[in-house]
Amino acid sequence: MSLIVTGSIGIDSVEAPTGTAFEVLGGSCVYFAAAASFFGPVRLVGAVGDDFPDEHLDVLNQFDIDLTGLERRDGSRTFRWHGKYLQNMNSRETVSVEPNVLAEAFPPVPPSFRDSQYLFLANTHPAAQLELLDQFPDRKLAVADTMDLWIDTERPVLLDLLGRIDGLVLNNDEAEQLTGEPNLISAAMKIVDMGPKFVVIKKGEHGALIEHGGARAVLPAYPAKDVVDPTGAGDSFAGGMMGVLAANDDHSPAAMRRAMAYGTILASFNIESFSLERLGQISREDIEQRFNEYREMLALE
Amino acid sequence: MSLIVTGSIGIDSVEAPTGTAFEVLGGSCVYFAAAASFFGPVRLVGAVGDDFPDEHLDVLNQFDIDLTGLERRDGSRTFRWHGKYLQNMNSRETVSVEPNVLAEAFPPVPPSFRDSQYLFLANTHPAAQLELLDQFPDRKLAVADTMDLWIDTERPVLLDLLGRIDGLVLNNDEAEQLTGEPNLISAAMKIVDMGPKFVVIKKGEHGALIEHGGARAVLPAYPAKDVVDPTGAGDSFAGGMMGVLAANDDHSPAAMRRAMAYGTILASFNIESFSLERLGQISREDIEQRFNEYREMLALE
Repeated sequence: MSLIVTGSIGIDSVEAPTGTAFEVLGGSCVYFAAAASFFGPVRLVGAVGDDFPDEHLDVLNQFDIDLTGLERRDGSRTFRWHGKYLQNMNSRETVSVEPNVLAEAFPPVPPSFRDSQYLFLANTHPAAQLELLDQFPDRKLAVADTMDLWIDTERPVLLDLLGRIDGLVLNNDEAEQLTGEPNLISAAMKIVDMGPKFVVIKKGEHGALIEHGGARAVLPAYPAKDVVDPTGAGDSFAGGMMGVLAANDDHSPAAMRRAMAYGTILASFNIESFSLERLGQISREDIEQRFNEYREMLALE
Repeated sequence: MSLIVTGSIGIDSVEAPTGTAFEVLGGSCVYFAAAASFFGPVRLVGAVGDDFPDEHLDVLNQFDIDLTGLERRDGSRTFRWHGKYLQNMNSRETVSVEPNVLAEAFPPVPPSFRDSQYLFLANTHPAAQLELLDQFPDRKLAVADTMDLWIDTERPVLLDLLGRIDGLVLNNDEAEQLTGEPNLISAAMKIVDMGPKFVVIKKGEHGALIEHGGARAVLPAYPAKDVVDPTGAGDSFAGGMMGVLAANDDHSPAAMRRAMAYGTILASFNIESFSLERLGQISREDIEQRFNEYREMLALE
C-alpha cells in the first residue's frame, strides 16, 4: 500500500558526549522516510531552501524514497536545528533553532501522490496537518505526530486534528502535557477518548506503549549499548512502524504490536550513528536478524 | 527446591495520592516471601520487636511461609518506615525511619533452615548479608538486593559480597550509583564484571533488565492502570522471580526471563493495594491468567 510522509527536512548540528556532527541531514520526515523505506517505497512531501546541499539529496537518494514532493524553494533557507545531548543521552537542550522554510507555506502535494493510502503527518503546525489530511481522499490510515509547542499554543486546532486522524504518536512528556495525566496508561486512554482509534506513546530508552481500543501493549526498547546520537529515534520508530503497517495492510492489535517492534528495531539502528549514517549501512536482512533476536528476548515459554 | 529469604520486617505508614495506610505490615522480606509463596513454601529469617501486632502475624500466616526464623525480640521495637508518594507515584520521600531492631544483631538461622538451596538476601547491611551467606553451605543460587546507603557508605564490604553471590537485584538509580554509568546496559555489564553471574536492574514502571553472562534481556512492566501503593513492588518482583526459579530449579537464560516475567506479574498485583492486601486476595490462577495475558502481549509473530 502507498505510504506518504509529510513534515520537516532539516540541517542539524548535534553535540553529544559521543562526538559532534555539523550541518548534517535531519528532520522528522527524513528519519521517518529512511526507516520506512526498508519495507516498501515511501513518498515524501516537504520543503528545503536553496541552501540545501546536494550531498544531502544524495543521501536521500540512497533510500527507496520518491522525492517528487520535495520542493527546493528559491530565496528560502532550510530549517536548521542545533541540539546538545547531556551526559546520560536522555535529555537534550536546543542550542538554536531556525524555522526558516518551515514558517512559510507548506509545499503542494504532487497530483501523483493524492491516492496515498497510508499517511504519516510528521510533526508540524496542526493547522497544516489538517490541511494535508484533506488532500488524501483515499487514505486508509492517517497517523500524526505532534510536539509540546502545539499542545501548549494550538490546543483547539490539535483537538480538531485528533478528531479526524486514526492514530497519534507522541512521547511520554507530551502525553502527560496533553492530558494532565502522569500515569501513561491513563493518559493513553484519555487520548483515545479525544478521537483517534489508537495512540502510541514513545518512552525513549524504555520503549513504547500502544492503546488501541481495548487492546493495550507495552514493548521495551531494543537494549542498545552504544548510543551515539538519539536524534531521530522517535521518527525512525514511527517510520519502521508505518512502513510495516503499509506493507502488510493490517491494523489488527497483533499487527500493530509487530509493527511497533519493527519500529523499535529501526530506532535502535538509527541511534548507532549521527544523521542517517547507520540507516544507510544496513540491509533488510540486518533488520530481520535483530528483529528475531528481539522476538526471542520477549518470547516467554 | 527450598527457598529462604532474610531481611527486614517492618511496620509501614504510607501516604499516597490514592489514600493512606497507618502502621501496616511491610518490610523487604515480607513482600518477597508473600510473592514467592505462590510457587512453593518460603522460609523467612528476620526479627521484630515486642510491639509487633498479632494481626500482622495473622497476615503472614495466610501465606505458605515458614516463620520458624521469625524472632520476636523482647525489649526491642520493630523497624518502622513512614513514606510519602508524590503525585506521579514514581518518586517518594521518607517522612521518618526508625531502624530499631534492624540496628541490633541479625536473628539466628534455625538449624532446620541451613540446608536451604535458593537464598535471597533482601536489603540489609552487606556485612550481615556476607555472614548470612556462610550459613547456607548447600546453596545453589544466592541472590542479594542492596540500597543507596550501602553503596555510599559500605562499598568495600558490598564489593566483597558481589564477589561471592550469584546474582544481584537493584534499581536503576542504584545501578548508576554503583558503577557511575548512566547507560543501564553498560552499568549491568560493569556489575557482572564485579563478580555476580547475573544482575537484574529494576526500572519500576519501565520493567526490568537482566544481564546474564552473554544473555541480555529487557522486559516491560505489566501495564498497570490502577496504582494504589508502589511500596514493595521491587521486593514482590524479586519474590516472584526467585519463587519460580526455586520451583523449577532452572537458571538458563530463558528460565531467568520467564522468572522475571512472573516477578513483574506479582509486582503488578502488589501495587493494586496497600501492604499485602492484594497479594492476600489473589490465587495462583489469577497469576497464571495475568501471566498469559502478558505473554500474549509480548508474543511477536
